[in-house]
Amino acid sequence: MPTQFDPPSGTRDFLAADAEQREQAFSVIRSVFTRYGYEPLQTPAFERLDVLLGKYGEDGDKLVFKILRRGEHEASGEADLALRYDLTVPLARVAAAYGSQLPSPYKRYAIGPVWRADRPGKGRFREFVQCDLDTLGSASVLADAEALCAQHDALAALGLPEFSIQLNSRRVLSGLLEAFAVPGELGAGVLITLDKLDKLQPEAVISELEGRGLAAGTAADLVNAMTGPDAVDRVRSALKPYSVGAAGLDEVDTLLSLVALQIPPGRIAFTPRLVRGLSYYTGPIWEVVAPGVPGSIGSGGRYDHLIEQLGGPDTPATGSSLGVERILSLLPQGGADQHSRLDVAVTVMADEFGRQAFDLAAAARGAGLRSSIYLGESGKLGRQLRWASNQGARWCLIYGSAEDEAGTVTVRDMRSGEQTAVQVGELGDYLARQ
Amino acid sequence: MPTQFDPPSGTRDFLAADAEQREQAFSVIRSVFTRYGYEPLQTPAFERLDVLLGKYGEDGDKLVFKILRRGEHEASGEADLALRYDLTVPLARVAAAYGSQLPSPYKRYAIGPVWRADRPGKGRFREFVQCDLDTLGSASVLADAEALCAQHDALAALGLPEFSIQLNSRRVLSGLLEAFAVPGELGAGVLITLDKLDKLQPEAVISELEGRGLAAGTAADLVNAMTGPDAVDRVRSALKPYSVGAAGLDEVDTLLSLVALQIPPGRIAFTPRLVRGLSYYTGPIWEVVAPGVPGSIGSGGRYDHLIEQLGGPDTPATGSSLGVERILSLLPQGGADQHSRLDVAVTVMADEFGRQAFDLAAAARGAGLRSSIYLGESGKLGRQLRWASNQGARWCLIYGSAEDEAGTVTVRDMRSGEQTAVQVGELGDYLARQ
Repeated sequence: MPTQFDPPSGTRDFLAADAEQREQAFSVIRSVFTRYGYEPLQTPAFERLDVLLGKYGEDGDKLVFKILRRGEHEASGEADLALRYDLTVPLARVAAAYGSQLPSPYKRYAIGPVWRADRPGKGRFREFVQCDLDTLGSASVLADAEALCAQHDALAALGLPEFSIQLNSRRVLSGLLEAFAVPGELGAGVLITLDKLDKLQPEAVISELEGRGLAAGTAADLVNAMTGPDAVDRVRSALKPYSVGAAGLDEVDTLLSLVALQIPPGRIAFTPRLVRGLSYYTGPIWEVVAPGVPGSIGSGGRYDHLIEQLGGPDTPATGSSLGVERILSLLPQGGADQHSRLDVAVTVMADEFGRQAFDLAAAARGAGLRSSIYLGESGKLGRQLRWASNQGARWCLIYGSAEDEAGTVTVRDMRSGEQTAVQVGELGDYLARQ
Repeated sequence: MPTQFDPPSGTRDFLAADAEQREQAFSVIRSVFTRYGYEPLQTPAFERLDVLLGKYGEDGDKLVFKILRRGEHEASGEADLALRYDLTVPLARVAAAYGSQLPSPYKRYAIGPVWRADRPGKGRFREFVQCDLDTLGSASVLADAEALCAQHDALAALGLPEFSIQLNSRRVLSGLLEAFAVPGELGAGVLITLDKLDKLQPEAVISELEGRGLAAGTAADLVNAMTGPDAVDRVRSALKPYSVGAAGLDEVDTLLSLVALQIPPGRIAFTPRLVRGLSYYTGPIWEVVAPGVPGSIGSGGRYDHLIEQLGGPDTPATGSSLGVERILSLLPQGGADQHSRLDVAVTVMADEFGRQAFDLAAAARGAGLRSSIYLGESGKLGRQLRWASNQGARWCLIYGSAEDEAGTVTVRDMRSGEQTAVQVGELGDYLARQ
């Protein structure tokens, strides 16, 4: 492929099979979310620059695609708009804009592309689809449970063979910091380091914690409590005496109980070492992992103050996000053939039979079949049968002088090569019966 | 709505009902196009600037949204990418990029947003969806007929009450210029003026033609031949002696005959005064109009050299485009309520019954119903019934102490107010039977 015809760096063209697979997956997800009473929201691809900047930290701001002013202002080299970087800042803007016109609570999902000027790499794109659901306006753990279950059901409905959910609460982590007497000013940094427990050896994490100023004994005790086979029991007993920690445990246990009937046992587990990198979470947090896949394929949690920080109203909020691009790469591929397969290919044996070919294709479509007529220039049957075969057609219809005289059409089964003469008026019924 | 929370000028937020209506319409269109054997193509939202610029004329170039270079290059104020302006230039790039990997002919459809920095106005947006289908690689009039019929079927499937198709051929127009001895160098300009016959009075068009240098008698003869009740007959006889014109008539008649069985009589007519503004058409051209709607809701035609002009391979091509934004505005609206309606609303009468409420909602979803639990803080039944009513719920499920003791759930019909006690284990079956 000559470089000048590539899509821009970090973006992709989706030809037939990929585009169909993606559309099908989005349709499955929409249907699950809808059954949970989440409603769709679509916002523009771009927002005013001031709506986006300052919301993603300094590093995030650098990754925002900015749009040049137009007309006489273009020469200024300034930007006034920018492509959306995620679906959460637009949600905060919508919550601010429509306020009481929105239902309360506002349960919405959004599926759409976002753009980040990241360095492209394996599995990392500059244009990729995000798939979020969120509930604004409810502080109830029932809202967390719905977000968790809807995400689980979507993954199950997509046919993902194996995945599991790690569940924790930010309050459990706060309780741990209190129980292990971590000085308040070190808390945020300690959590950032503890977040590496799934990638680094415990010793490496301990030494990084010490580097952050944590006493050597404390660092080791904390890491030991959070890792190993009996981590859950040790964390449970460590947290009991502390009110925040105990509330966090209660939150986790309530959630586990709420989802017990819907998420199969063994697929969800309290995981004390789960931190979630982002600091805005305030309650339950979770990640979905799949065997052999680095990182997570989904995540979620409660973030009670973020919408306000992003410019929206002060509202409790919870939600989950599916890593659809990763999930799509895990689903079975349709096979080597990138292009759509026809059900019925219709030959055109001579110009004079074009009208009949056209009507035969319409009859096949009327029977719900994907059908196309031959659009090439050859009148040779062999050539047209090769085309039908290349299109993956299940049947090929042949209509020439003999058929025209007999008022029939020849239906060729492309697998067996068997040919059957069918009355023209009965073609739709005949195909529908096969 | 405070201005600072509006979506950017010329763009729209789609809340529940609108988003659902749009998604539903796109799904109907996809399904029709798929049955015709067109396959989907999705290209990125942006292209490299050099791919887009110079393709839309000077005026078009000014309407392209340009994206600023990033990182250290941002300060240059230069752009290297731009939001796509239509779906045709990306198609030309894809045809160049994938060449022989694409099926031949390549029948593809694309539905997606494009962006133009037009002055926003009633029905004119800066972000709007285009919906194109095209066949590359076939010079056959059968390909034109497919593009026309697929478009017609999509409009019919969308439930559009009334529309009709005006059909012509560029060759008919060339033949007319020849028959009326219009000097070659005036041809293009004369066609631009004749394109106004559906908006201006014939006299105004005649006088504009004279302004372009056409002899007064010629201008009047030409306009008279193309308008009035017997225009078709007059054009037919005027064209007979000229080979290009006769070929154009033949093209129109072949098309009318091919589609006769699928497009109801009276819904399509040879319309000699149809010009289509764009100069790249080379064969059949058509427009779909609806009563009371200015302009067209769909259009199409053959454009055998455009793909090459746009940077793709030299290939014959034909296609059609649906004006989906206009069409959506013609479809019946879902009613005043912008938000999704629930089938089943589940009360939570006390925290201790949260788990049961959650499971009851799951049972309702299992029966295919849109179901949500109450996520607010009030334990009062009246308040929760009001919520259920606001959500448009068909049924409300009540589960409190009495139901807990009896092992039942109270199903309230929200229309009649009638309440029925149903065994918890039989809820799904009960709701499915209603």
